[in-house]
Amino acid sequence: MSFPTVGVVGGGQLARMMAPVAINLGIKLHVLAEAADVSATTAATYTVGDYTDYATLEAFAAEVDVVTFDHEHVPTEHLQRLEAAGVALAPGPGALVYAQDKLVMRRKMAELGLPQPDWRAVSSVDELLAAAEDIGYPVVLKTPRGGYDGKGVWILDSPDEAREATVWFNGDHEALLVEAKVDFRSELSAQIARSTTGQTATYPIVETIQTDGVADLVKAPAPDITDTTVAAARQAAETIANGVGVTGMLAVELFHTPNTEAGYMINELAMRPHNTGHWTQDGAITSQFEQHLRAVLGLPLGATDPIVPFTVMKNYLGADNHDLYGAFPLAMTKYPQAKVHAYGKSVRPGRKIGHVNVLATDGDLDAALAAAIDAAEIIRHGRTDY
Amino acid sequence: MSFPTVGVVGGGQLARMMAPVAINLGIKLHVLAEAADVSATTAATYTVGDYTDYATLEAFAAEVDVVTFDHEHVPTEHLQRLEAAGVALAPGPGALVYAQDKLVMRRKMAELGLPQPDWRAVSSVDELLAAAEDIGYPVVLKTPRGGYDGKGVWILDSPDEAREATVWFNGDHEALLVEAKVDFRSELSAQIARSTTGQTATYPIVETIQTDGVADLVKAPAPDITDTTVAAARQAAETIANGVGVTGMLAVELFHTPNTEAGYMINELAMRPHNTGHWTQDGAITSQFEQHLRAVLGLPLGATDPIVPFTVMKNYLGADNHDLYGAFPLAMTKYPQAKVHAYGKSVRPGRKIGHVNVLATDGDLDAALAAAIDAAEIIRHGRTDY
Repeated sequence: MSFPTVGVVGGGQLARMMAPVAINLGIKLHVLAEAADVSATTAATYTVGDYTDYATLEAFAAEVDVVTFDHEHVPTEHLQRLEAAGVALAPGPGALVYAQDKLVMRRKMAELGLPQPDWRAVSSVDELLAAAEDIGYPVVLKTPRGGYDGKGVWILDSPDEAREATVWFNGDHEALLVEAKVDFRSELSAQIARSTTGQTATYPIVETIQTDGVADLVKAPAPDITDTTVAAARQAAETIANGVGVTGMLAVELFHTPNTEAGYMINELAMRPHNTGHWTQDGAITSQFEQHLRAVLGLPLGATDPIVPFTVMKNYLGADNHDLYGAFPLAMTKYPQAKVHAYGKSVRPGRKIGHVNVLATDGDLDAALAAAIDAAEIIRHGRTDY
Repeated sequence: MSFPTVGVVGGGQLARMMAPVAINLGIKLHVLAEAADVSATTAATYTVGDYTDYATLEAFAAEVDVVTFDHEHVPTEHLQRLEAAGVALAPGPGALVYAQDKLVMRRKMAELGLPQPDWRAVSSVDELLAAAEDIGYPVVLKTPRGGYDGKGVWILDSPDEAREATVWFNGDHEALLVEAKVDFRSELSAQIARSTTGQTATYPIVETIQTDGVADLVKAPAPDITDTTVAAARQAAETIANGVGVTGMLAVELFHTPNTEAGYMINELAMRPHNTGHWTQDGAITSQFEQHLRAVLGLPLGATDPIVPFTVMKNYLGADNHDLYGAFPLAMTKYPQAKVHAYGKSVRPGRKIGHVNVLATDGDLDAALAAAIDAAEIIRHGRTDY
């Protein structure tokens, strides 16, 4: 056995961030990129190709030892065909569908007996109105497939708003998902890795603050939850990982609902490294990116312990500053402890272009939060006033 | 200002290990590699070329924003010519010569008033015999240039052995360096970064255990030295960094001599990331590789604090096992906390091919030592008996 090549479908920042750990481990990374100028192409070898084209996927798979994913948008039928052809997929289509299709996911969570918002599959505005009446307003309407970072999600406060949803029943989906809008105290994320061998390793439960549907800030571990909720959330991640047979990293997004018995409800699943796990790059013994590579290669999983009492991750999204590097000096002068990550992407408003991790080595979470937020804002807005 | 490109002359593992931090920071790394199959070529873009050829260096420099080094073997006259032509070199030849030429270095340390072994420049066996008599046997004879990892170094125990050194006065060097063989308690390394702006940042003093002239094991920070020696060693690193005007990482290798006033003597200098600093990849807020890139780019330097009480680094050198990856499962199963680094090099006996870092998160240095040593031995010898 020599050092293997991991193929990643999709050239976004998640693929990019697998590259440093691949280099460290001596493993080769090869990316199927949407274009030559996407995030991962300056970090790994790549082929440009269309992941919705079966022949492209097949040719790519022939070049690598195992195929994994930067995103969940590869058509299920292509994945099934690749699997039937003997391609090692991690995760496989049987697992990935639960991250691709929110209706299939809701059914599975019910089958696994895990707490989740009241939900219905609806195929028309009439069904939506009836379901929403039953669930109680406000409700959340979601497209089962294709949504991410808040896209494909609508909050409906009244029957009047629900009646306006006609446009969403446009034939792209057999049915839409409608579910209760949960009155949560905060959002949590439970990450777990599951190897091809079945071994699992769970990360600390983190708190994630979303802004406009995008994970924006992470506190690791989550500071304000009980040990009971931590244990329940970790158990849920384990139940799901084994229940769906995932390979690689699984992120279970949770609503923290301390007034319910379990203390949480399942929101969504992602089967890949996840924005809520970027803190592990600097704050955990084994980063989620290393863990993902280990899991898809069937290597033993690494320790998931945090290295310091708290780590904070703050995203920076595209804004008015296009010269990110020009803002590094001020951010780094003010915060020599900040770990600045940049994705090699051009700046567009609202686009995820980087993040900052700050380790609270002394346990001072508030100071770490303030540092991470300010450093990210400096880069985002290009302040150089020092 | 957009994200810059750092050029590295030399494609060894030090260049390779700059790649992950360059990716994290969004910086581009371009390597002048000795051949297409050296360590760094699977981690960064590269040009194959001969670093002893001026035209090759000139063409390489034109492709990048700043030129730095994986090793100290580029001829000084080429560096001077590049500098005169306006190429940004970090470090520049005026500094690098102190890491290239041990006689020039010894003179400079004397000028800076820093403690070092008694030494002489000798040009013949007669001069060597006189100097060794004066210094007292055993003495160490060194070629001023070209030696590394124990090469170009001979220990002479008696006049008889000194007389046999005729062969070393072969005309390649104007003079050789002879110095006292220091009766040290241990070897230390003081690392400091100095930016193009003159800013400096000193790392914790570490203990390094050499085997056959190769740094083999590092304990960070050094467990058995007094605060006075730590302060003196850090001050020496600062004095040298500013005294020679280095840009980038400087490693000052020290003999720990607790029976002397300062508690240390200067052994050698290296002006690049150094084997004794590999622990910082996993055990410090800012790794030496990130710090080197920051320093050569004139970015503010990062915090050098260790994240945990102790970190251990253990090299693994080529031995009987050629299937390194095949030994990963046992090493990773036994030591989920171990950070395994592989350099993408083919296995040759005694060749540095990787290292293992283990963080003593609980402060148990002995346990971390045992884990790092065993994990490295498993990989080196290919044990799979589990």
